[in-house]
Amino acid sequence: MSDIEIAQKASMKPIIELAKAKFNIPPEHLDPYGHYKAKLSLEYVDSLSHQNKEGKLILVTAISPTPAGEGKTTTTVGLGDALNRIGKKTIICLREPSLGPCFGLKGGAAGGGYAQVVPMEDINLHFTGDFHAIGVAHNLLAAMIDNHIHHGNALNIDSRRIKWKRVLDMNDRALRKITIGQGGIGNGFLREDGFDIVVASEVMAILCLATNRADLKERLGRIIIGYKTDKITPVYASDLKAQGAMAAVLKDAIKPNLVQTLENNIAIVHGGPFANIAHGCNSVTATKTALKLADYAVTEAGFGADLGAEKFLNIKCRSSKLKPSAVVLVATVRALKYHGGIETDHLNQENLEALEIGFSNIQRHIHNITKNYNLPVVVSINHFTHDTDAETSLLKKKCEELGVKCVISSHWAKGGAGAEELAREIIEIVDNKEASFDYLYDDDIPLWNKIEVIATKIYGAKEIVASSKVHEEIDKLQNKYGKLPICMAKTQMSFSTDPTLKGAPSNHIIEISDVKLENGAGFIVVIAGNMMTMPGLPKVPTAEKIDIDDDGLITGLF
Amino acid sequence: MSDIEIAQKASMKPIIELAKAKFNIPPEHLDPYGHYKAKLSLEYVDSLSHQNKEGKLILVTAISPTPAGEGKTTTTVGLGDALNRIGKKTIICLREPSLGPCFGLKGGAAGGGYAQVVPMEDINLHFTGDFHAIGVAHNLLAAMIDNHIHHGNALNIDSRRIKWKRVLDMNDRALRKITIGQGGIGNGFLREDGFDIVVASEVMAILCLATNRADLKERLGRIIIGYKTDKITPVYASDLKAQGAMAAVLKDAIKPNLVQTLENNIAIVHGGPFANIAHGCNSVTATKTALKLADYAVTEAGFGADLGAEKFLNIKCRSSKLKPSAVVLVATVRALKYHGGIETDHLNQENLEALEIGFSNIQRHIHNITKNYNLPVVVSINHFTHDTDAETSLLKKKCEELGVKCVISSHWAKGGAGAEELAREIIEIVDNKEASFDYLYDDDIPLWNKIEVIATKIYGAKEIVASSKVHEEIDKLQNKYGKLPICMAKTQMSFSTDPTLKGAPSNHIIEISDVKLENGAGFIVVIAGNMMTMPGLPKVPTAEKIDIDDDGLITGLF
Repeated sequence: MSDIEIAQKASMKPIIELAKAKFNIPPEHLDPYGHYKAKLSLEYVDSLSHQNKEGKLILVTAISPTPAGEGKTTTTVGLGDALNRIGKKTIICLREPSLGPCFGLKGGAAGGGYAQVVPMEDINLHFTGDFHAIGVAHNLLAAMIDNHIHHGNALNIDSRRIKWKRVLDMNDRALRKITIGQGGIGNGFLREDGFDIVVASEVMAILCLATNRADLKERLGRIIIGYKTDKITPVYASDLKAQGAMAAVLKDAIKPNLVQTLENNIAIVHGGPFANIAHGCNSVTATKTALKLADYAVTEAGFGADLGAEKFLNIKCRSSKLKPSAVVLVATVRALKYHGGIETDHLNQENLEALEIGFSNIQRHIHNITKNYNLPVVVSINHFTHDTDAETSLLKKKCEELGVKCVISSHWAKGGAGAEELAREIIEIVDNKEASFDYLYDDDIPLWNKIEVIATKIYGAKEIVASSKVHEEIDKLQNKYGKLPICMAKTQMSFSTDPTLKGAPSNHIIEISDVKLENGAGFIVVIAGNMMTMPGLPKVPTAEKIDIDDDGLITGLF
Repeated sequence: MSDIEIAQKASMKPIIELAKAKFNIPPEHLDPYGHYKAKLSLEYVDSLSHQNKEGKLILVTAISPTPAGEGKTTTTVGLGDALNRIGKKTIICLREPSLGPCFGLKGGAAGGGYAQVVPMEDINLHFTGDFHAIGVAHNLLAAMIDNHIHHGNALNIDSRRIKWKRVLDMNDRALRKITIGQGGIGNGFLREDGFDIVVASEVMAILCLATNRADLKERLGRIIIGYKTDKITPVYASDLKAQGAMAAVLKDAIKPNLVQTLENNIAIVHGGPFANIAHGCNSVTATKTALKLADYAVTEAGFGADLGAEKFLNIKCRSSKLKPSAVVLVATVRALKYHGGIETDHLNQENLEALEIGFSNIQRHIHNITKNYNLPVVVSINHFTHDTDAETSLLKKKCEELGVKCVISSHWAKGGAGAEELAREIIEIVDNKEASFDYLYDDDIPLWNKIEVIATKIYGAKEIVASSKVHEEIDKLQNKYGKLPICMAKTQMSFSTDPTLKGAPSNHIIEISDVKLENGAGFIVVIAGNMMTMPGLPKVPTAEKIDIDDDGLITGLF
């Protein structure tokens, strides 16, 4: 059965009743969206924040992604269900899927197999409208910029130095680079512009880091949209008086969304910033709420641990004072063989040698988590049919040599029951010792050094280099924004900036091609290589196969 | 108090309970969106369609719009509340407001004063996400077009003949005319394109005319996106296999939305196509559902009766077999003085002479409705403080001379109580005689003659003219699409194509500048003059004043 077929057979419980039964959430604090989705009121979220109780936070991250697939979301769901099965009150926190990629190659992003959150079609298609609201807030600011210039440009905005593009939740390469304002005087001034996908919007990052409505509005107001004609004075969203309307547009988007897993456990699915040019985690509000409601909260971070976990720990946890208790590192035998040099066509054949070589990738990630952050880690291997006993034994042995437990999980096929061993290992760790989590770098070290620490300690690079122009940019930021954390944007496929370098490349050079201050989100994006912020559709897009029948049943979503 | 302040003081009832109490709608057929909005299942809509019962349909339309404002939506809400007050089970059917204009000059569009639908902020800001879904469906097709060309253009689409633009629910003049596909090979082919506002999308018109999911998908598939390189072969959305995914994206948008008036009467607010390049009425599904549930349904059509009512009667009613029983023609003393040549600054001063001159406008509309469609009409004057007794008496007298009742209504200030006289007049008419509604033209007369009939009989024009190119276009359409109705796109400010010609211009010439087949919607748009399909923001947009406080209370929406 396909994921959507499994999801459609789910026996869902009305979410309001479920939330009441599981966590005693008063129905009046839930806004239903249909019968199986609901938004939690911020008043309730706020009331929880005054309670002393705090659950344990478990982060699910992965090896460097490969075309073979790893299954982070699936593991997060499976582990959550397994914890609940063994009697541990757990809530999982996921990112909301982006609509655009559903029409491309990827299909949906609400887990897979028997480890899914439901209603799957709703979560993938429009969910509770959060991303649409983010798009509107973003594009309202964009429209106000060009409108301001059109009506006399009292702020002296330099139209060549506008950094604020437009966004759409669609894979649409034709909009990456465009010229706007054509057609004559009535249409404003001509300039180059472009569209990013909604998840790449700074508004998304802001929404996911904001702690309440006041913080949200404050952050929106301090967005820097570009510079004045003097080339150096920033123009803020607040100069355009946009932040009030933007925050009003986000009035519901800021509230966390409750749904359920196939096994009727509560999941909070809220926010979903890009994991390269943004920090790639679900909202702080969601994670904090889960920790107040449940004894354990399981959440995921985008891409591999070098990008997703690094940002989760150094951006999200830093800004919100969250402290994880343990990390689950997801891998597959297939993906590790791919890191060992095997092509996608041959991953189903046993190959211990390739596995051994590819193990270098997971080893680097294990090292990073345990040594750089001082966090306990459990490796979870998502089981595939073709994995051989020899292969899984080898993996277990190699992990053991590193002092790390390796568990074979089969939640994809069996749901929570397939991840019980993983759940027990995690409980063993988090219930028995307090993790002493360290950030990778201090706020106070210079920006250049922060980038260097990430590149050398996490990526295994020899050094970082940059053009004099980029050096200048970083120097300019140092003075006023030097305490901000770094958000690295580089390929997720490799520890290096070369996506074809698998395994654990060492002594490579990371070239910084650009830096960008995200003043509202509160981090500095450091770009190494070309980042795609507007995907395209493949030759045969999934959209061609998606269909709905006369009774409203959707097929082909993936 | 401002409209939003009045709306925020409303004592709303939970919509699911209200729907059950008023019309015995089973809760399981309602999808809640928060506690005060809900979507009706299509299964329930379908089950109603098999019942024999049919309420009476009342159309609210207006004189030619002026900057002085008329108040069609307010009258629709007030009349609905008044009918319910006098014991007549009534549902009102409105269009959903477009988000973009909320940030511009206009503010919200959910009625005004004490004649509003609520929750006002929700209805104006994102409501149940219908317009976002329409935008995604539209832009998915656009992305699939450029993607198809990028990947080899197997369909031989002529990129210069693509008619399918992109859409955004934003007032953003800079996007009216753009160049896309810049930046190199990876971004596709360069071509000129542009964005319309979402309400101008053919998908919006389709959604509002579709009778069920199958019809929706069929209509989406037959959208013509442009022509092949042979210049004449149409390319359909179905050629790109887009209609299934588009219909899936619209899975919830097709369901009618239930909200309530300030007086706790049910309103169905669903769909909102532009009233110039589209037909400007709420969805057929909404109107039909209201007629099955209630004894009376009151609905509105966009702009003045020459555009809105004409399209309601000749497009919406024709395609759906709806038969209105009576028409309410809304006017104000101020607006009629404006039609009599008075500038906006002086409309508060009594001026019987100007009123007498301006009466020509309402007289033409009355004539059109009674003589061209054979429908009974009641004039409703929205009362303003500065209206004098002499002025209202003059209006009543002049209407009486035409055999038409004229009622002074004060629902804006008093809610339903202020429209009771209007309600009684309407009941008097619709309960006592069966209207024998006629279309303005038959399906079978040639397209050119259809346009001519509208121009001469409704607009009072002497003739229609067109360039040979436009003549050719019409001739080309005649063969295959000759039975389709006409959707006139011309200025709403005048019976002529010159917006400055107030009152009732006669013997003018209507020049057809363009024709456009909307094959999915099932009408031919005939354009006379420049139509704005993407508004701009004013120098000081309303967005600058919109705000939300720390508790989520919105201000400044208008």
